[in-house]
Amino acid sequence: MDRKEFRDLASPAAAREAIRSLALEGGIDRVSLENARGRVLVTRIDAEIDVPGFDRSSMDGYALRARDTFGADEADPARLELVGEVHAGAEPDVELEEGQAVEISTGAVMPSGADAMVPVERTDRASGEATSSDGDDVLVRTSVAPGDNVMFAGADVAAGERALGPGTQITPREIGLLSALGIDEVPVRSKPRVGIVSTGDELVRPGEELQSARGEIYDVNSYTIAAGVEDAGGEAVVYPHAGDDMDEMERLLRRAAEECDLVCSSGSTSASAVDVIYRVIDEQGELLLHGVSVKPGKPMLVGRLEGSAYVGLPGYPVSAMMVFRTFVAPAIREAAGLAEPETATVAGTMAIRERSEQGRLRLAPVGLVEDGDGGTLVYPVDKGSGATTSLAEADGVVEIHPDIDYLEEGEAVTVSLFSPDVRPPTLFGVGEDDPAFSRVLDSLSNPRYLSIGSRPALRRLREGVPDVAVVAGPLERAVDAEPLGTWSREWGLLVRPGNPDGIEGLADLVDRDLRFINRTTDSGLRASLGADVAALADRRGLERHDVVGSIDGFDLGLRAHESPARKVIAGEADAGLGLRSTAERLDLEFVRLGDQEVRLLATPDRLEKPGVRELEDALDRANL
Amino acid sequence: MDRKEFRDLASPAAAREAIRSLALEGGIDRVSLENARGRVLVTRIDAEIDVPGFDRSSMDGYALRARDTFGADEADPARLELVGEVHAGAEPDVELEEGQAVEISTGAVMPSGADAMVPVERTDRASGEATSSDGDDVLVRTSVAPGDNVMFAGADVAAGERALGPGTQITPREIGLLSALGIDEVPVRSKPRVGIVSTGDELVRPGEELQSARGEIYDVNSYTIAAGVEDAGGEAVVYPHAGDDMDEMERLLRRAAEECDLVCSSGSTSASAVDVIYRVIDEQGELLLHGVSVKPGKPMLVGRLEGSAYVGLPGYPVSAMMVFRTFVAPAIREAAGLAEPETATVAGTMAIRERSEQGRLRLAPVGLVEDGDGGTLVYPVDKGSGATTSLAEADGVVEIHPDIDYLEEGEAVTVSLFSPDVRPPTLFGVGEDDPAFSRVLDSLSNPRYLSIGSRPALRRLREGVPDVAVVAGPLERAVDAEPLGTWSREWGLLVRPGNPDGIEGLADLVDRDLRFINRTTDSGLRASLGADVAALADRRGLERHDVVGSIDGFDLGLRAHESPARKVIAGEADAGLGLRSTAERLDLEFVRLGDQEVRLLATPDRLEKPGVRELEDALDRANL
Repeated sequence: MDRKEFRDLASPAAAREAIRSLALEGGIDRVSLENARGRVLVTRIDAEIDVPGFDRSSMDGYALRARDTFGADEADPARLELVGEVHAGAEPDVELEEGQAVEISTGAVMPSGADAMVPVERTDRASGEATSSDGDDVLVRTSVAPGDNVMFAGADVAAGERALGPGTQITPREIGLLSALGIDEVPVRSKPRVGIVSTGDELVRPGEELQSARGEIYDVNSYTIAAGVEDAGGEAVVYPHAGDDMDEMERLLRRAAEECDLVCSSGSTSASAVDVIYRVIDEQGELLLHGVSVKPGKPMLVGRLEGSAYVGLPGYPVSAMMVFRTFVAPAIREAAGLAEPETATVAGTMAIRERSEQGRLRLAPVGLVEDGDGGTLVYPVDKGSGATTSLAEADGVVEIHPDIDYLEEGEAVTVSLFSPDVRPPTLFGVGEDDPAFSRVLDSLSNPRYLSIGSRPALRRLREGVPDVAVVAGPLERAVDAEPLGTWSREWGLLVRPGNPDGIEGLADLVDRDLRFINRTTDSGLRASLGADVAALADRRGLERHDVVGSIDGFDLGLRAHESPARKVIAGEADAGLGLRSTAERLDLEFVRLGDQEVRLLATPDRLEKPGVRELEDALDRANL
Repeated sequence: MDRKEFRDLASPAAAREAIRSLALEGGIDRVSLENARGRVLVTRIDAEIDVPGFDRSSMDGYALRARDTFGADEADPARLELVGEVHAGAEPDVELEEGQAVEISTGAVMPSGADAMVPVERTDRASGEATSSDGDDVLVRTSVAPGDNVMFAGADVAAGERALGPGTQITPREIGLLSALGIDEVPVRSKPRVGIVSTGDELVRPGEELQSARGEIYDVNSYTIAAGVEDAGGEAVVYPHAGDDMDEMERLLRRAAEECDLVCSSGSTSASAVDVIYRVIDEQGELLLHGVSVKPGKPMLVGRLEGSAYVGLPGYPVSAMMVFRTFVAPAIREAAGLAEPETATVAGTMAIRERSEQGRLRLAPVGLVEDGDGGTLVYPVDKGSGATTSLAEADGVVEIHPDIDYLEEGEAVTVSLFSPDVRPPTLFGVGEDDPAFSRVLDSLSNPRYLSIGSRPALRRLREGVPDVAVVAGPLERAVDAEPLGTWSREWGLLVRPGNPDGIEGLADLVDRDLRFINRTTDSGLRASLGADVAALADRRGLERHDVVGSIDGFDLGLRAHESPARKVIAGEADAGLGLRSTAERLDLEFVRLGDQEVRLLATPDRLEKPGVRELEDALDRANL
């Protein structure tokens, strides 16, 4: 096997600098005001008109000459002759002379000759006899000064004024100002086009059929990076898979480079694909950087191809997203003219000790949980580099300096949230994968629950990380926790519809040639099964391991509660360990072995946490 | 004039409750994964497949049986017969037996019979003689345990697991998880459709031609509220203007109510329109609330029409947006399933005293400026209720309780930012509207500059609010400020091209029958003109006011520096006060009256502020 080695890893700062040097630069779009929200102005906008464009009455009332009201008050009103009216949106057809008034609506044009207005509330109407007019007179019960209750032309914005500067991001407020100026189209920065190329023979697009036997997996990076690009203000173009065919891959990279400002490939996990991409960039483009001293993300490529910028991301989804977020998203935001988001950071303390690897900057995804005192506990989320779900279970990232090999429990850390609107969960639970409890979770506002099994859940509870743990089956060790509730569930063997093998209980698995699928030792179901096996061994006067040895498949434990049932459906086993509710849901036959108590336990100092209280209420309502 | 009075104003809390009682409820959309970003899941998503779907090699190396490596180390490697290879995306065509190894790529399917793998770095190849195989042997220089370097099927996500709960907002991380599960379409909450109806004969859509003489103004509310709706997660539908025709307005309201979940009208400023809308809702729908004790926003309507929710917003743009933001946006977000944004608040102190009106909750738009000590000063932004630009000059809102009639200077206040990503300006300047300085502003990162004129700028500087002030012309009062730079500009009279009236100087305006347009007394240009007028009076042995009285238009001052020039172009004046640069830009003739010094002054304790330093640098570069 011949593999590129990364001997001289670049520093993270050098990687940032290399990407900056690519000088992503968008062009200019002209967008209508309706589509301008969130975009960034390229040029300054000056007012071309006065706003308002005329002297405007600020209220409903009467336009008049201020000097005609001098000395007027409640007791001694000024009497003016009413000579007409002006409505909003109409041109005044009257010119005002001394001693006259014109009825005027809010927003209407002040008639010529008027220099102030009086709101209707400070006036009365009277017959016009006193001024010998045919119509009414107006009694004005207050004095006003010239300009009172009039908004003069240009008072809001005057023609020629600098209205908005270049680089302004357009929010509803700027849309208000642009509307007022009559501007219905603005020049904005183009969104940088980012082409996304995923390579690998094993990748299948979501929605298509997967052949697991061939080692196919769904392509996670394409849509995820695309969403990240759009979050950063870019326009994502997802290209079809290249597979591992070298010529096709090269053709696709070139096409993407021609059509986009930046190309992000996410490396196939196969060595050959990485090599092809490396060769294409190195020989036909320009390679600026290969390998960065960061974990995850070591195999990063930065370069140029066909005049476009190119960044090669790792193939593993978590690594790809972490590298994208740290190095690529800032460059896209800059090209889009968007400010870096306000640093959304949270100060917390490590809930447990976390080991790091010296020599590389570590970007560690972490989850957050509020402890009993309102402090923030930070725990690492790490399901291995191949995992795709880690990020959905994390809230942000802790950067661990290359010189540090441990973060100690209780150590203060700063978490950079994935985005400023990340809301850490209101409740953090771990434990048994239980269908009834899953339904309870659905009614909570923002829970996080990790189905890690009963045994690990107790360990996590002892470490003081989660708020609650759900445990089932016989448990060997006590833990300092507050019981919040219990319910029971029927467990047993799940067999094919109609029970063709006539399985009646555990003894059949021991005595007959049947293929069984077990759950992992982490699960409470496995613990209950273990107890039954021990009892059977007792009854038969055998050692436990002799009984276990007679059950084909006892040692192969699957993690999730439905997995054994699915193996039975797939014909890979005759019986699987599971729950009655699962059998019913999947139309399997259920051979009951017993009832099992499921317990909800809370970390003692979290009982007053709103999320824990919400869970208690939901549990009461659910009446399991 | 017959006008609805708001006798019993509802409390803000009652208004919120009324809008909540409208129970905006969106339906369900099915969207593709590419369009799912930002949307909110309606149902729980369970995993339907194991991820990975097979036991997967985590590295490049050799699949083997762990027990064959027991005891192996660098010095004493285990020698295994190489019997084949498996690549990612291919089905293994080999079954492993004792003493055998298979070359395997990262991500490939573990072949049957293998239970662990060893990375290539811990191995060597050797000729196959020792194991009497035809091909190569593998020397394994480490021991591994079963499961080492293998990611088992379902280890990441197992079929049947609860993957995402209802109400989850979809970010790139959730898109990653959904992709891994092969899900390419998800059920999400529909965006509530919000119809926007603006009424008023005087409204013209931006981009169309405006007849100011008729009192027309551009419609600010339609696109602004539409942008606010989209910010809140709704879908905006902007309806054509209804004008003030009652039947048309009613027809339009009904149509919008039929087509949308919520209708927001923004009242025409004319009383009749408000009354029509009131009548339609009251008689043919259901009126829940009319008038709220809040400023701005008193004339708010809440009700139902044609089964849809209805909210009537005030007509004035600032009022409409403040009411929308406070009462309507939260309801749209709730219907869209979006969490209320993390409270983006800033603690600050009032820069000046602000008067409020007792009895109504006041929503006061404010601007923010950082003082010399890193504290945040808060100043009210209020250009009158008819102004459209106030919000573009503000950063957030201070709520002033109905019982409070003053916020004192220095009083601590909490500002709720317009959105969490509002960035208060890096520099806050006020003063003369100067074209050269405007260009300097264009090169700064995030400045705010209000062209309020030289005289008010000095007053604001004395109050200690802005960072800098730009002042021009002879100023009567000294102020404690640091000079940052000066430049000069030519000022004089702007006349029609070719100077048809043969105007040569100020004396012509005094002695001849010419129409002149002046600037306001706030402007430095006006101050320089005033000095020249005084000098002319001196020379002629006259009183200043006699000279002034002979200039037609001397007392009518316009606010913006280009306004007099525009009046000359429009033929409304023969000469206007202005700058040579303005004359050149607008192709007018310039009659020079003098040079004027423009000074940039800084509040003494702000010299170290980054925004002020950036301005100094920009000024140096500009070399004015």
